Amino acid sequence: MNKFSEDKYISKPSIRRHPRYFRFLGELKDRGMERISSTDLSKLMNVTASQIRQDLNKFGGFGQQGYGYNVNYLHQEIGRILGIDTPHNMIMIGAGNLCSAIMHYRSFPRYGFNIIAAFDVCPDKIGQPVNGIEIRDMEELESFISSHKVDIAVVTVPTSSAPDVLSRLGKTNIKGVWNFAHVDVEMPNNIQVENVHLSESLMILSYHIAERQNEEK
Amino acid sequence: MNKFSEDKYISKPSIRRHPRYFRFLGELKDRGMERISSTDLSKLMNVTASQIRQDLNKFGGFGQQGYGYNVNYLHQEIGRILGIDTPHNMIMIGAGNLCSAIMHYRSFPRYGFNIIAAFDVCPDKIGQPVNGIEIRDMEELESFISSHKVDIAVVTVPTSSAPDVLSRLGKTNIKGVWNFAHVDVEMPNNIQVENVHLSESLMILSYHIAERQNEEK
Repeated sequence: MNKFSEDKYISKPSIRRHPRYFRFLGELKDRGMERISSTDLSKLMNVTASQIRQDLNKFGGFGQQGYGYNVNYLHQEIGRILGIDTPHNMIMIGAGNLCSAIMHYRSFPRYGFNIIAAFDVCPDKIGQPVNGIEIRDMEELESFISSHKVDIAVVTVPTSSAPDVLSRLGKTNIKGVWNFAHVDVEMPNNIQVENVHLSESLMILSYHIAERQNEEK
Repeated sequence: MNKFSEDKYISKPSIRRHPRYFRFLGELKDRGMERISSTDLSKLMNVTASQIRQDLNKFGGFGQQGYGYNVNYLHQEIGRILGIDTPHNMIMIGAGNLCSAIMHYRSFPRYGFNIIAAFDVCPDKIGQPVNGIEIRDMEELESFISSHKVDIAVVTVPTSSAPDVLSRLGKTNIKGVWNFAHVDVEMPNNIQVENVHLSESLMILSYHIAERQNEEK
């Protein structure tokens, strides 16, 4: 069964909420809970029950009146929609502190995101290990990608190097770029991009702080 | 003049777009550009001109018919709305790789986000420097906050330690928490929270990759 035919119209805000459902359902599953009502799930997650029904029922009605959601099944289905039922090979580009931080996240391998290589241009770093993986020369990027199954490139290079790195990645057959560089990325249609712009997130926090202080005045 | 009285109703999606306007206008300013039309800005930023007008005109009409936006003024006003006209003192909690990565971001001090201390529980780390700042004992957290002006606490501790750290922060007079721990945070009303959940971002990428592959089938 191809779920995606019916999932086509999931709105962007709705899909952005799915990883959080996945996390909560995973925790319930770990606690041995078999089913949960939308009301209880809404209390737990601090969102309205109607939003939960709106987000989850469109996947084909996991919830049954009076029974609630089957935790295990819903967790598995959301994982499948998020593509986590398939393992992903990742490569790191730019072997700095952020790269190290990402390589130490224990939850990524648990979700099937496996880091298989790291690349850098710095001669002092090349050949050194980072979290058990030897850092390779950026020169080898294209040949590595063409001889391995690489799904995702994680870009943690400085802003100034990012356009060149992204342009090189755009000519490969990877499927996605997880971009931490503070630049806007245009990629061919076959490569998906997700940006993490930390300074933008910090500015949003600063906005809310300023807003709150103005309310208090 | 208090801009916030008229800004009260900025929608969440709109305010999330403001850091990007701020970045683009900053780049135009650095290039010596004095004014720009909403049409040109829309091409540059790859959004519709009507969205730009909708986002920016509500701040009181920076744009004038035929003249366009004054780059310097708009940049400054957006910075003010984002609260970046005021410097923020930050403390780091959890002195691991992510902490180091954040401490090395050159753009944060440029926007007035100054890291004044770092804390950890690990005896091997306490007393050691990270990017020129000595790591302090977590025991000193509350006394440091009460004797210094601390605006933002950046939480980069492991998930298991996060609830305790966040509960301690909730009893202090800081103004915001920038939370990287993979937990949901409930804070008193006077403390704003911005979450960066990296695994959720990676799942969204994985969703788009799966969606694309299903389209191709």
